[in-house]
Amino acid sequence: MFVSKTVTMAAATVGRAEGGTPLNAFDNALLAAGIGNVNLIKVSSIIPPDVAIVDLPKIRPGALIPTAYATVTSDVPGQTLSAAVGYALPDDPLKPGVIMEFHDTATQRDAERAIRAMLHEAFAVRGEGIRELKVFAVEHTVERVGCALAAVVLLGEQDLA
Amino acid sequence: MFVSKTVTMAAATVGRAEGGTPLNAFDNALLAAGIGNVNLIKVSSIIPPDVAIVDLPKIRPGALIPTAYATVTSDVPGQTLSAAVGYALPDDPLKPGVIMEFHDTATQRDAERAIRAMLHEAFAVRGEGIRELKVFAVEHTVERVGCALAAVVLLGEQDLA
Amino acid sequence: MFVSKTVTMAAATVGRAEGGTPLNAFDNALLAAGIGNVNLIKVSSIIPPDVAIVDLPKIRPGALIPTAYATVTSDVPGQTLSAAVGYALPDDPLKPGVIMEFHDTATQRDAERAIRAMLHEAFAVRGEGIRELKVFAVEHTVERVGCALAAVVLLGEQDLA
Repeated sequence: MFVSKTVTMAAATVGRAEGGTPLNAFDNALLAAGIGNVNLIKVSSIIPPDVAIVDLPKIRPGALIPTAYATVTSDVPGQTLSAAVGYALPDDPLKPGVIMEFHDTATQRDAERAIRAMLHEAFAVRGEGIRELKVFAVEHTVERVGCALAAVVLLGEQDLA
Repeated sequence: MFVSKTVTMAAATVGRAEGGTPLNAFDNALLAAGIGNVNLIKVSSIIPPDVAIVDLPKIRPGALIPTAYATVTSDVPGQTLSAAVGYALPDDPLKPGVIMEFHDTATQRDAERAIRAMLHEAFAVRGEGIRELKVFAVEHTVERVGCALAAVVLLGEQDLA
Repeated sequence: MFVSKTVTMAAATVGRAEGGTPLNAFDNALLAAGIGNVNLIKVSSIIPPDVAIVDLPKIRPGALIPTAYATVTSDVPGQTLSAAVGYALPDDPLKPGVIMEFHDTATQRDAERAIRAMLHEAFAVRGEGIRELKVFAVEHTVERVGCALAAVVLLGEQDLA
């Protein structure tokens, strides 16, 4: 699991789902996002230099995966939930990238706007220019018990199925 | 600590305790559960395939242990706290198991019932049959500041004392 | 990142900052504390035996760092925030040390007092004498959106820049 782990890839994903309970809605949103059968370890929230941004690959079941994520669950029917993550990579490839997370009873558009603003502030504070910025967001309208989730997973070769 | 870690064992445990503060009550509940001198890293919440379910062994002090856990603390005398974890393992041994957690001001019986229902939903959603399902729960009535805790730890050989 | 990690050092640090959002205030407090460009993995909260207490070194960008931390954010102008961590090491060097965390809308003095009391209880419960006890605290008065943060990072050689 932690087998001599080196992070070489980062991938973003989003999911949303209903469930019988808040925890099941979260589990179902993870499954919808393609990361329902791995062990997420929450991190705050840096993309190491020299890490490739990739499409979410198939991950080994039960792998321990450092993940920056935002999630929101609600049992209020009709409520709009949004979760978003975004990353920005610096002009200088030796410097790290930054991940920001957002979740709220808000629209996807508001979530995306919040992520962008936070990433721009993070780079202004660091005195770095942004070479690439991407946002991944999802919106869910609750039926009974709903969850919206957005994540950036940090992967090594040994995590791939 | 992360020394080339491979998860080969999972063990469940519960604990409950009083303390002078909420954090001490949590610390004392961890000690009561036999995991008070390790570094818990919270994970959500999968048992990798081919992992043996074992009785809680003696763990090396300070080891970094991926753990799915539920905990609840209260300073309301007389209040009933419950924490529970459970796991279900699939018919197909190549598929991962699932861990669910629950904590609330509830009875142990309610906590156990919640875990069972969540595990059954998780397996129905995955389209897997359950070959084994176990629940571990604890109830605590608060005297001054109390904590109930339930955990599943993911272990490798190098974590053993 | 997890490259055959062995924890050999622990270092404490504190930071405080304003930001445009709560997450940016947290990011800025991490930068102020010297740990803004690493991936914090929250742990609860043990110093393994034989670990050297060091001044915070320069850490590799994006490294995955097990960290015990306390943080508090507020958008109430004028409010006083405090975060503190502390550790106590046992007389018996084969036994682990304990880390305690505190955050609240409180003064730094109250935060420090809380940490000391929690550490003394933790060692009384363990039946161990204290050979060394240190507290690290920070106080911040909110202007717009503020954050106070205190952390103990657990490091190995491979985490150093």
